[in-house]
Amino acid sequence: MLVKGEPYRTIWPRADGQAVTIIDQTRLPHVFATVDLETAADAEHAIRQMLVRGAPLIGATAAFGVWLAMRADPSDAALEDALALLLAARPTAVNLRWALDAMGATLAPLAPSARADAALAKAQAIAEEDVVINSAIGDHGLQAFEEIWRAKGERGSLNVLTHCNAGWLATVDWGTALAPIYKAHDAGLPVHVWVDETRPRNQGFSLTAWELLNHGVPHHVIVDNAGGHLMQRGEVDLCIVGTDRTTAAGDVCNKIGTYLKALAAKDNDVPFYVALPSPTIDWTLDDGRNVPIEERAEEEVTQLTGRTADGDVGTVEIVPTGSAAANPAFDVTPSRLVTGLITERGTCAASAEGLRGLFADRAA
Amino acid sequence: MLVKGEPYRTIWPRADGQAVTIIDQTRLPHVFATVDLETAADAEHAIRQMLVRGAPLIGATAAFGVWLAMRADPSDAALEDALALLLAARPTAVNLRWALDAMGATLAPLAPSARADAALAKAQAIAEEDVVINSAIGDHGLQAFEEIWRAKGERGSLNVLTHCNAGWLATVDWGTALAPIYKAHDAGLPVHVWVDETRPRNQGFSLTAWELLNHGVPHHVIVDNAGGHLMQRGEVDLCIVGTDRTTAAGDVCNKIGTYLKALAAKDNDVPFYVALPSPTIDWTLDDGRNVPIEERAEEEVTQLTGRTADGDVGTVEIVPTGSAAANPAFDVTPSRLVTGLITERGTCAASAEGLRGLFADRAA
Repeated sequence: MLVKGEPYRTIWPRADGQAVTIIDQTRLPHVFATVDLETAADAEHAIRQMLVRGAPLIGATAAFGVWLAMRADPSDAALEDALALLLAARPTAVNLRWALDAMGATLAPLAPSARADAALAKAQAIAEEDVVINSAIGDHGLQAFEEIWRAKGERGSLNVLTHCNAGWLATVDWGTALAPIYKAHDAGLPVHVWVDETRPRNQGFSLTAWELLNHGVPHHVIVDNAGGHLMQRGEVDLCIVGTDRTTAAGDVCNKIGTYLKALAAKDNDVPFYVALPSPTIDWTLDDGRNVPIEERAEEEVTQLTGRTADGDVGTVEIVPTGSAAANPAFDVTPSRLVTGLITERGTCAASAEGLRGLFADRAA
Repeated sequence: MLVKGEPYRTIWPRADGQAVTIIDQTRLPHVFATVDLETAADAEHAIRQMLVRGAPLIGATAAFGVWLAMRADPSDAALEDALALLLAARPTAVNLRWALDAMGATLAPLAPSARADAALAKAQAIAEEDVVINSAIGDHGLQAFEEIWRAKGERGSLNVLTHCNAGWLATVDWGTALAPIYKAHDAGLPVHVWVDETRPRNQGFSLTAWELLNHGVPHHVIVDNAGGHLMQRGEVDLCIVGTDRTTAAGDVCNKIGTYLKALAAKDNDVPFYVALPSPTIDWTLDDGRNVPIEERAEEEVTQLTGRTADGDVGTVEIVPTGSAAANPAFDVTPSRLVTGLITERGTCAASAEGLRGLFADRAA
């Protein structure tokens, strides 16, 4: 997608072939800066410190990290060390383990002298596969957008509400929930996006707004409280969000607050779509109520970071000293509130039957 | 209620009878400071700059402001000037107009020499009436709390979720939605409060948390996104909020985001109560969809103020430069989502019949 008019991905091998370059997402939206990763330790640091985030991008960064390790030392011991180092960077990230397993399976059988080139090729393949999946999600989502636009009589704007950041910054390119938005915008549909702030970490204001601004997609930022009212007043034509994990029955675990927007969408007959690459489907789990919900640090709630008057990035405390905070990071939207799941293979009902229809080869 | 162990109201005549004292709410929760108002212009400034806020407190402050004017000059011209000056401070505040009309009606017929003493007496009566109304709301709400506590088997805590600040800081004392919480806490019920942040102006984190902390009521602050998840997991026993305006049919206009919590309460069979002094009932309006919703400044959304590391109060920008914001300040919760309206005359169904049952003398 575009940044200041130039096309970017979130990760790419540097032109001289000696490093991999990423965007430092901890400084967005206030500063756009790239960082070169020259060693596996650099890649581990970028993942651990969240310079890169989003499951697909974490996986791709780890894959390139293995390449950097193999350039320095292609021995069996170095390969094992690199895999262990990178896996520990974000221990709960499913894509990270998957990408590292794929790298290990590709490289372990090879002679050490062949490993660096093979690692680069495999890391690039992992990155390309993510782009292909997300582009397909974008194409399938675009069909839903076009139907809604026609049903609206093609008047005014097509108003889309999204929560959190399921954009290209969370992937290698396109994003998941934002892929149909970019495809629709590029196809000439007059898309306008309501961008939920997404407290406590504000990924909507920090990342989604920044993405849309740079790609030229019209949007307004809104507080998380506002979406229900906008739906009541007919100002939202559809909602689309990403997901961290979807059960085999179509319950959707996503950033905290998603459930509230799905309730409002149902109450106002607004279509509510979830964009998901199939690796985020958990075929072992039927009932969303059994998804464990991460409780994160209180400081995410009680402090807020932004741009100060003098252009620096500063942090302020926003609760009285002594008040405790609770910080559940995700919630689960029951499948009954979801209009459709948009996958790389097409759109289906949020149900066991719907998912089995598209993924008969994978469903249990 | 208590501040650092001492009982306070939000407004009181200074001991020497030469001024009225308020709490500067713009500096909460970071600094607790009182301000003496010595002239009507001081009172006008306090209302306009939101040192005092909340409909009942604005009305009381204006009433005391008329007293300050009469102390300086009790002439007819000075009375008219003071009423006009104070009314212009917050033109849309219904209670402000009501309080000033009451002051004018009391003072205009009197000889100028009698006006200062009469103005003080009337202002004190207006303040006392607010305390009596809110205390009665607290007593009626306490009954609902006790029923829910018994139905829960009196185990653990009674977990109450509230949105925005409908506490004593918005009134002269007790508050509306928080009055039953204080009454329950003081009566020994193990109340625990989930305090919604209430973006964009953060009245939950700034004011409600500060109130509860100072009065010793156990609580956790949460982002506005979290309440639905907590209800899904059985962590909320009831919700209670205030209201800016309630229609004659029981639709509730309150701070933006209230509707989302009411939807989640309905979806999870959690009782959802609204505490309202009867002056906030709009007997001329039946359908909440006709309530005009104020659109406020973008900066409330795009900037956030808090305590900096060095103890100052600072403001940061939290969206990229160039992203526009929408900022609807209120939403309307349909009566079908409201379990009961708690008024100074008792609790009733959120319906025309319910309200007429308590207010047959006022309903149209």
